[in-house]
Amino acid sequence: MTSSPSASPTTSTGSPAARAAALDAADPLARFRGEFVPSDDVVAYLDGNSLGRPTRASAERLARFATEQWGARLIRGWDESWYELPLAVGDRIGTTVLGAAPGQTFVGDSTTVILYKLVRAALDARPGRTEIVVDTGNFPTDRFVLEGIAAERGASLRWLTPDPDAGVTADQVAGAVGPGTALVVLSHVAYRSGFLADAGAITRVAQDAGALVLWDLCHSAGAVPVELDAWGVDLAAGCTYKYLNGGPGSPAFGYVRADLHAALTQPIQGWMGSDAPFEMGPGYAPHTGVRRFLSGTPAIVGMLAMQDMLDLLTEAEDVAGSGAVRAKSVRLTGFALDLVDELLVPLGVRVASPRDPARRGSHVTVDHAAFEQVLRRLWAQGIVPDFRRPDGLRLGLSPLSTSFTEVQVGVEAIRAALLDVRSRP
Amino acid sequence: MTSSPSASPTTSTGSPAARAAALDAADPLARFRGEFVPSDDVVAYLDGNSLGRPTRASAERLARFATEQWGARLIRGWDESWYELPLAVGDRIGTTVLGAAPGQTFVGDSTTVILYKLVRAALDARPGRTEIVVDTGNFPTDRFVLEGIAAERGASLRWLTPDPDAGVTADQVAGAVGPGTALVVLSHVAYRSGFLADAGAITRVAQDAGALVLWDLCHSAGAVPVELDAWGVDLAAGCTYKYLNGGPGSPAFGYVRADLHAALTQPIQGWMGSDAPFEMGPGYAPHTGVRRFLSGTPAIVGMLAMQDMLDLLTEAEDVAGSGAVRAKSVRLTGFALDLVDELLVPLGVRVASPRDPARRGSHVTVDHAAFEQVLRRLWAQGIVPDFRRPDGLRLGLSPLSTSFTEVQVGVEAIRAALLDVRSRP
Repeated sequence: MTSSPSASPTTSTGSPAARAAALDAADPLARFRGEFVPSDDVVAYLDGNSLGRPTRASAERLARFATEQWGARLIRGWDESWYELPLAVGDRIGTTVLGAAPGQTFVGDSTTVILYKLVRAALDARPGRTEIVVDTGNFPTDRFVLEGIAAERGASLRWLTPDPDAGVTADQVAGAVGPGTALVVLSHVAYRSGFLADAGAITRVAQDAGALVLWDLCHSAGAVPVELDAWGVDLAAGCTYKYLNGGPGSPAFGYVRADLHAALTQPIQGWMGSDAPFEMGPGYAPHTGVRRFLSGTPAIVGMLAMQDMLDLLTEAEDVAGSGAVRAKSVRLTGFALDLVDELLVPLGVRVASPRDPARRGSHVTVDHAAFEQVLRRLWAQGIVPDFRRPDGLRLGLSPLSTSFTEVQVGVEAIRAALLDVRSRP
Repeated sequence: MTSSPSASPTTSTGSPAARAAALDAADPLARFRGEFVPSDDVVAYLDGNSLGRPTRASAERLARFATEQWGARLIRGWDESWYELPLAVGDRIGTTVLGAAPGQTFVGDSTTVILYKLVRAALDARPGRTEIVVDTGNFPTDRFVLEGIAAERGASLRWLTPDPDAGVTADQVAGAVGPGTALVVLSHVAYRSGFLADAGAITRVAQDAGALVLWDLCHSAGAVPVELDAWGVDLAAGCTYKYLNGGPGSPAFGYVRADLHAALTQPIQGWMGSDAPFEMGPGYAPHTGVRRFLSGTPAIVGMLAMQDMLDLLTEAEDVAGSGAVRAKSVRLTGFALDLVDELLVPLGVRVASPRDPARRGSHVTVDHAAFEQVLRRLWAQGIVPDFRRPDGLRLGLSPLSTSFTEVQVGVEAIRAALLDVRSRP
C-alpha cells in the first residue's frame, strides 16, 4: 500500500471535529440519519459493512408484523403476498442496487447456500471444464464452499493472490483463465481490504475464455454502484444484512442472468423451486424462470426489514440525485483516510485499503498489532468498528446512517485507545 | 380407510356446540389460548399444522428486537448471544420436543436445505450402498430433494406406497431394506393423511439392515411425542413454523446423533460450520460437534419467535403434567372425527386420516370433490383450514392454541359451505 496521502475531497483545515461538523452540515443525505433507530450506548457505529442499523420503519414493521400480518392473515398470507415475496423483493434489490432488470434476482437462503447452488449449477453448465478461479483474499465462506465443491466434483481451484496495491485485476484474471476454466468467483469489494474490482472488465476477460463469472456482492450491494446487466454478469450473490440493513442473518440474494435460466439447474430441488409447488405430484420439474433457484420455504420474517432500506435508498437518490449514495460513501472513506493519516499513521498504524476512491468500497481497514486489544476498549466505550484477523480494524461506513462526526469520533477514539494500550497493555 | 366410528374420548350427547363448550371447560390447557395473538377476522383457525399462530410474547419480542437488540447491541450482538443461537435454540428444541440430549440439534437453513445436507452426508457415510427408501406419501420437497440427490450421485430411490389403513409400517420397511440400502427417509407424521409412523420400530429394522434413518419431523415437533435418543434415530429434520410457531419461513432444525458427528460431513462448507469461523484462514476444517452441520450466517430474526413457543410448551407440561400436550391433541382430533362422522360423512365426505389415536398426528384430513370450492368460501368467512390436492381439507389442531369450539364451528361451517356449493356451485 502506498503511504502517500490521498487526494481527498474533504477540507483539511481546522480541528478534526470542526471539519467533521462542516462535512455533516454540507451533506445532502444528512437527514437520512434520522431514519434509523438510535442507540443510547453507541457513540460511533463504524460497522455498517458487517451489520447495518435497523431503520425506524423496520422496527415498526417488525412490531406490526406478528399482529397485523402473521397473526391476522395466518396461512392466507401465503396466497396474499408471501409466496411471491422472494421474487418481489429480489426484483426490488435488482432494480434498486444491482442494475438488474426484473426476473433475475431472488431472495433465498444464506449467502453460503446460494453460492453453493450457483457454483454447482455453473459447473454443470460447463462440462469438460474443471477449473474454478478464485482469489486468496475472498471471504472465507466463499473459499470454503468452493473447496467443498471442488473436492466433490473433481474440480480444481486456481488461486489468485490479490495485488496489494490494486486488488484482483483484469490482467490477473486474463492470465489465469483458459479453456479449462469453468467459473471465476470473486468479490466485487474485498471484505478485508475494501478493494473494488473492475467487475465489467474482469467479466469480459473471463467470458472471452468461455468461463462463467460469479460476483460476491456482499460488501457492494447498497453502497457502491453495481451494473450487473450492463456488465453482462452471469451470476451473483450477496447478503442483505450489511448495506441493505435486513437484520442479523437476513436471507441473501442471488442473481442469474435471464438467458441462462434454461441452461442452469441447481442441486437442491425443493418445492419452492418447482414448476407447480402445490400440485404435490410426483417428479420435480424446475420452474422455467428465476424461481428455479429457490429451494425451501422462504424466510418471510427475515425479508421484512430490507424492504424499508430499499425504500430509503430509492428516496435518497430521488432527493439528492443519482449517485448521491456513492458520492457520500467516497467522502466518508476519504475523510476516514485523512484522519487515519493524521492521527494513526504516526502511531505505526498501516492503511490496508486503497487510496484511489475509484477502487475503494465503503469500508477502510487499518492494521496494527495492538488492534485486538484496542477493539475491546472501543466496544466498551460504544465505539463500534470490527476486527479482522490478524490485526485489522475495519471501519464500515454506511452512506445513509454514518455521519462524518462518527468517523472523527471513532478515529480519535482509536488513537486514544492505542495510546492507552501502549501505556497500560 | 375404515368407516367405523372412532372410539372417542369425547362426550357424544348434546349439540356439537354444547359438547365443544363442555370439552373446553374441562381442558386443563384452555388458558394457554390467551397466550396467542388474537385475530379479529379469524373465527376458527384450523391450520396450525401449516403455520402456527404468533404468541403474544413473540409479538412483543419482535417489536423489541429492532430497538433493544439489533439497534442497540448492533454487531456486538454476535459476540453476546447470536453466534451461539443456532445451537442454543437447537438444544431447547431437542430437549423440549424431540427427546434429544443437548449437542445434537441445530437450527439452520430451510427444511429442504437441511434435508439436502443430511442426505448427502448419509450417503457419503454408507459407501457402496446406493439405495434410498422413501414413500410416495412423503412431502413433495422431501421427494424432490431425494430425486435430485439420487440423480447426481447415481443412487436409486425405492418407493414404498403407504398402506391406506396403516401408513408406512415397519413390516413394509423391513421388506424394502437390504445390503444396498444406504438410507431410509420417512415422515414421522404424514403431511396429508396424518398417519403417525412407529418410528422406533422402523428405525430398528432399517438399522438392522445397516442403513441410516432420517425422520422428517415437520408435522410432529411440538404436537406428538418424539424420542429421538430413545429410538436410536440417526438423523432428523423438521420445520419450526408449524407447531413450534416460529413464524412464516422460520428456519428449520436438524438432528444428528452425537456418535455420528465425526463420521458425517455435509457438502455445503460455510464459515459457520468451520472449526474457526473468525480465523479467516485458508482451508476448511469442520467443527467437531454439531456445529459442523451449519453453513452460512444464521437467521437470527427468524429464530426469535420459536423460543416463546418452547417456553409455553414447557410451561404447559409443568402445569398440566407430562403428556398433557399430546393428550389434548388426541382429544381435539378425536372430537373433529366425531363431528365429521356426524355432520360431513352423510354428505359424502371421506375420512382420510387414521381413527386409531395411537397412529394419528395432530391433523385430520377429509376428502370431497367440492372442497377446493369450499375452501374459498370458508376463508372468506374466517374459517381457516387448508387444502391439499386433489380434494382434501386438512384440519390442523395445535394443542395450545386450538379450542374444541373452534373445531365445532369449523366443521359446522364446512357442512354449511358444502351444502351451499351443492345448491349454488
